[in-house]
Amino acid sequence: MHMEDMVKAPALAVDELTRRLSAEFPEVWNGQSGLAIEKVWWGGCQLRQAFRAQFLRPGATISGATIMALGDYAVYVALLATIGWEPLAVTTSLNVNFLRKPGRADLLADCNLIKIGRRLVVGEVAIRQEVDAGPVAHLTSTYSVPPQR
Amino acid sequence: MHMEDMVKAPALAVDELTRRLSAEFPEVWNGQSGLAIEKVWWGGCQLRQAFRAQFLRPGATISGATIMALGDYAVYVALLATIGWEPLAVTTSLNVNFLRKPGRADLLADCNLIKIGRRLVVGEVAIRQEVDAGPVAHLTSTYSVPPQR
Amino acid sequence: MHMEDMVKAPALAVDELTRRLSAEFPEVWNGQSGLAIEKVWWGGCQLRQAFRAQFLRPGATISGATIMALGDYAVYVALLATIGWEPLAVTTSLNVNFLRKPGRADLLADCNLIKIGRRLVVGEVAIRQEVDAGPVAHLTSTYSVPPQR
Amino acid sequence: MHMEDMVKAPALAVDELTRRLSAEFPEVWNGQSGLAIEKVWWGGCQLRQAFRAQFLRPGATISGATIMALGDYAVYVALLATIGWEPLAVTTSLNVNFLRKPGRADLLADCNLIKIGRRLVVGEVAIRQEVDAGPVAHLTSTYSVPPQR
Repeated sequence: MHMEDMVKAPALAVDELTRRLSAEFPEVWNGQSGLAIEKVWWGGCQLRQAFRAQFLRPGATISGATIMALGDYAVYVALLATIGWEPLAVTTSLNVNFLRKPGRADLLADCNLIKIGRRLVVGEVAIRQEVDAGPVAHLTSTYSVPPQR
Repeated sequence: MHMEDMVKAPALAVDELTRRLSAEFPEVWNGQSGLAIEKVWWGGCQLRQAFRAQFLRPGATISGATIMALGDYAVYVALLATIGWEPLAVTTSLNVNFLRKPGRADLLADCNLIKIGRRLVVGEVAIRQEVDAGPVAHLTSTYSVPPQR
Repeated sequence: MHMEDMVKAPALAVDELTRRLSAEFPEVWNGQSGLAIEKVWWGGCQLRQAFRAQFLRPGATISGATIMALGDYAVYVALLATIGWEPLAVTTSLNVNFLRKPGRADLLADCNLIKIGRRLVVGEVAIRQEVDAGPVAHLTSTYSVPPQR
Repeated sequence: MHMEDMVKAPALAVDELTRRLSAEFPEVWNGQSGLAIEKVWWGGCQLRQAFRAQFLRPGATISGATIMALGDYAVYVALLATIGWEPLAVTTSLNVNFLRKPGRADLLADCNLIKIGRRLVVGEVAIRQEVDAGPVAHLTSTYSVPPQR
């Protein structure tokens, strides 16, 4: 096997990321929010947002705000898992297309980074529910990485 | 004064909108969320999201998720104030540029609808804080209006 | 083999699409533009934009305008190949992330439709060059389908 | 008059910008394209794209590609007029909402920069026609400024 064929390990594994995020970003990463990291890999991650009635909106469907937040967190986690612990990375832009009305069930967010630069990182996220009827939403988000000291 | 010079009144006034939204969308429109309608007009609205520590993220700044939700709700309220009570209108797409790091203060969202169609409504939102140092974010969102019965 | 396992044929094949587009949209689909349909399938397509010096911009790279146009045409072709000949379908919104600086070579656009509705169609496009060093750009575009008579 | 009330002059005036762009970016800035800078100011500009039959698409309307290109060029020109001659600045992302079907007439693009950072510049563009029936399109675009040597 050649060096270039080796799959890179993520910079941070699930347990370590969850521990650090719970300390650094407890507003979102805590025991009650229902948000969890399912998997990480170099270049991506999968998050789960458990269903909560508080996320509903008229039409008995999960709000766009819930979906957008999940997608944005997915890119953040994928960024940390790939370039390492840079918690001050911030979103510069985000675009989302809502595709199908979600049901009263958990959301899964599959994120892959499509650009990993020194200054900007771009992630693409497919948000779905386990009853696979096509993605609920598709999102891209760009993060700015603070300059190195 | 000609008929065409008369400014149209909003379809629903602040108090009526707040009452209906609290009944229809209590997850977001309630006494504790800190979200309030400041003004509505035909074609737009202004919302306020009071500062809450729960909205912070690493870097002691308000999260992108909070800002995106506020912008999306602003377009929804502007739509209701303009075309009338269509609570099942749903976001089809949203784009946001984050421009400046917000401080620990309330957010104001000024929304103007830039397209009012039979099927699609598009709103533009400037999100700022009262200490005016330029907008914190700029957002556009498209809503789909359910077909009339 | 069950009915539901059969892959649907595209509504229009490459030759028929090219013929119709050359008649209906000659400004773009003609012998000189270098734009060609490589493949279509139900739900997607691949286009090629041949390199032309007229597409360059400062930095000796292909302009964003060229890339955006290609992505938008890809969603249009995928829409026609999937729902049939609806040439009056129009773009309602488009979002693009430019990821890598393209070189002086052809561009390939791989499009898959991520939503096929009665009123709106959403396509996702990866734009790359054959020397595969990661995608040059990622784009999503939403088209509105005219109401049926 | 206080120093802070003085309006900054643009870094480059119309004639100088046009001269430099014609030399540096002749593919787009030349005598035949019909693209012209109408005005520049510190923080913005107005461009005109003259009507050309080559920009039409099915439905006898101006193509989205033409409109997107105009909007992208407007942000580029506004950037140059504000931060000075940085021709290697490149678009990192762009989002456009198409609002009304344009007629067979010139397009005007009014651009204002909504963020002027050291690394990123964000512009907002309203694209309209002189027969004012509301904007034809609304666009935002982010440019990356090359690091200073």
